[in-house]
Amino acid sequence: MSKTLGEFEQIAQLMAPLAEKAKGAFALKDDGAVFSHRIDQEIVVTTDTLIAGVHFFATDDPFDIAVKLLAVNLSDLAAMGACPLHYTLNASYPQNITNDWISTFAKGLAHMQERFGISLLGGDTTKTPGPLTLSLSAFGLVKKSTALRRNGAGEGDLICVSGTIGDGALGLKVAKGDLEDTSGYLLSRYLRPSPRIALGQSLIGLATACMDISDGLLGDFNHLGCGGIIHMDKIPLSAQARQILDKDSEQIFTILNGGDDYELLFCIDEKSRPVLEDIAHACETDIAVIGRITKDSDLSLLQPDGTTMSTIPSGYRHF
Amino acid sequence: MSKTLGEFEQIAQLMAPLAEKAKGAFALKDDGAVFSHRIDQEIVVTTDTLIAGVHFFATDDPFDIAVKLLAVNLSDLAAMGACPLHYTLNASYPQNITNDWISTFAKGLAHMQERFGISLLGGDTTKTPGPLTLSLSAFGLVKKSTALRRNGAGEGDLICVSGTIGDGALGLKVAKGDLEDTSGYLLSRYLRPSPRIALGQSLIGLATACMDISDGLLGDFNHLGCGGIIHMDKIPLSAQARQILDKDSEQIFTILNGGDDYELLFCIDEKSRPVLEDIAHACETDIAVIGRITKDSDLSLLQPDGTTMSTIPSGYRHF
Repeated sequence: MSKTLGEFEQIAQLMAPLAEKAKGAFALKDDGAVFSHRIDQEIVVTTDTLIAGVHFFATDDPFDIAVKLLAVNLSDLAAMGACPLHYTLNASYPQNITNDWISTFAKGLAHMQERFGISLLGGDTTKTPGPLTLSLSAFGLVKKSTALRRNGAGEGDLICVSGTIGDGALGLKVAKGDLEDTSGYLLSRYLRPSPRIALGQSLIGLATACMDISDGLLGDFNHLGCGGIIHMDKIPLSAQARQILDKDSEQIFTILNGGDDYELLFCIDEKSRPVLEDIAHACETDIAVIGRITKDSDLSLLQPDGTTMSTIPSGYRHF
Repeated sequence: MSKTLGEFEQIAQLMAPLAEKAKGAFALKDDGAVFSHRIDQEIVVTTDTLIAGVHFFATDDPFDIAVKLLAVNLSDLAAMGACPLHYTLNASYPQNITNDWISTFAKGLAHMQERFGISLLGGDTTKTPGPLTLSLSAFGLVKKSTALRRNGAGEGDLICVSGTIGDGALGLKVAKGDLEDTSGYLLSRYLRPSPRIALGQSLIGLATACMDISDGLLGDFNHLGCGGIIHMDKIPLSAQARQILDKDSEQIFTILNGGDDYELLFCIDEKSRPVLEDIAHACETDIAVIGRITKDSDLSLLQPDGTTMSTIPSGYRHF
């Protein structure tokens, strides 16, 4: 059994090393932290809360929980085209969380720090009688007035997505034992999403609208504030998702509507289409054109036989 | 009974009005928010989590909970000498929280926005199976490289505090029914602390060290990283605290060590003493000189009879 550390020892030993590269974090010893941007930049801030039993399983590996916590926030920065810089962490730990747990959690944070060049800037640690509750705020930089927005798509724009759709939602079903995937791929996509940071930055000045898909492709499409036609056969699926869909066509609803994709949904003008391939190559991220923005305010799902899908599942709501 | 609002309606109707004055909040409709500072400034960020049953009573008035949530964070900005600008809110609501509750909570936020010239920038709303959990991050501005720090006090510096000490901790005892205060003053100090924003800004370039007192005067003094002598009879008490202490001298431990003061503890060079009165007047905040930093690393509490208090209660720890 590990020695119990008090609040201040825990912060000094387990968290302060994560803040070493952020001079303005003052080793987490002050009332606040300080940071700044260059004159031609702005700060993008985003924040998300993950709760045990709601957004992840309390028994998940703390390393994975840390990866997901940072990934979902970095995915929001990616959606705005921002370059990630810092984050703050509010951790509310139940009594049964051990120092070993926190130590492994910190290793997951360190892994993401290394991968995305970010550092911890500050935070707050509390005990809770409730479930483990983790709020993280991520800070990134964009060139002034260039941040990607959700609401700029116009009629005729191409609808694009990164990566593959539905893996996260299928992975959740695997985690629950409702689906089988011996490859482990779907579960890894659910547990450790990849924020599309490089792609987001490449889309600045190019995408007319951009957002990340966290609540399912169809539900999130509504937030673009316009209608469109999406070609069902153009929606990119992983081999594993395809295999599951071949066995059970009803899983299309999980894929389109299940959440946890953390891919980018964006629109571009038709004339920008030729550069997509270069961007995909440079960012090592597949990009698929899946449809087009229409004058109509509705979304139509076009099936390969030319008919429109009659039942469009409604978007995921947190509550 | 109020109509149940979904996540997006709740944000649009109850929260978005709080973000109206922050252009970069994009009406809370985007993946993140954007803000910036002038070239000669830096951003100060601080964050605190308050949990029902831990930091406040679940039955407290939601207006008061909102006031306290912003106050404890603004108090950290005050301690760094920052001018408050924006905040983000992560609210995890249990099932029994109604729209009326959230509406009153939003009124408390609006009250503090008006009072301190700040606006909501973004956030995240989730449901939790646990207690109401509120994380707030506050953003302020300071002139570059001028933020007040905890660690600059030197031997001979005067130890100062704002306002009166112990009211919050005594107010908590009133709230629990363990003490009586018919005036309601102590309870109000516990429920609705006043962050010393104007004072913090006035101390820039003057204070050699500054922090806010959230965990009790004695416990927090340790975070200054030096020793000192504090004159017990110089510690400023409210008439109500004095009255309680007169009846029960043991309450001195509550006063010195109980937390929830949200006053500023700061040090100045002896030669700056003459300006304290002007600052106190300009900021409409009493300031008391309660002691002096010493060469020793220990803290001594000097009693009026010249003896040193033998039992120094140890600082409050969250866990």
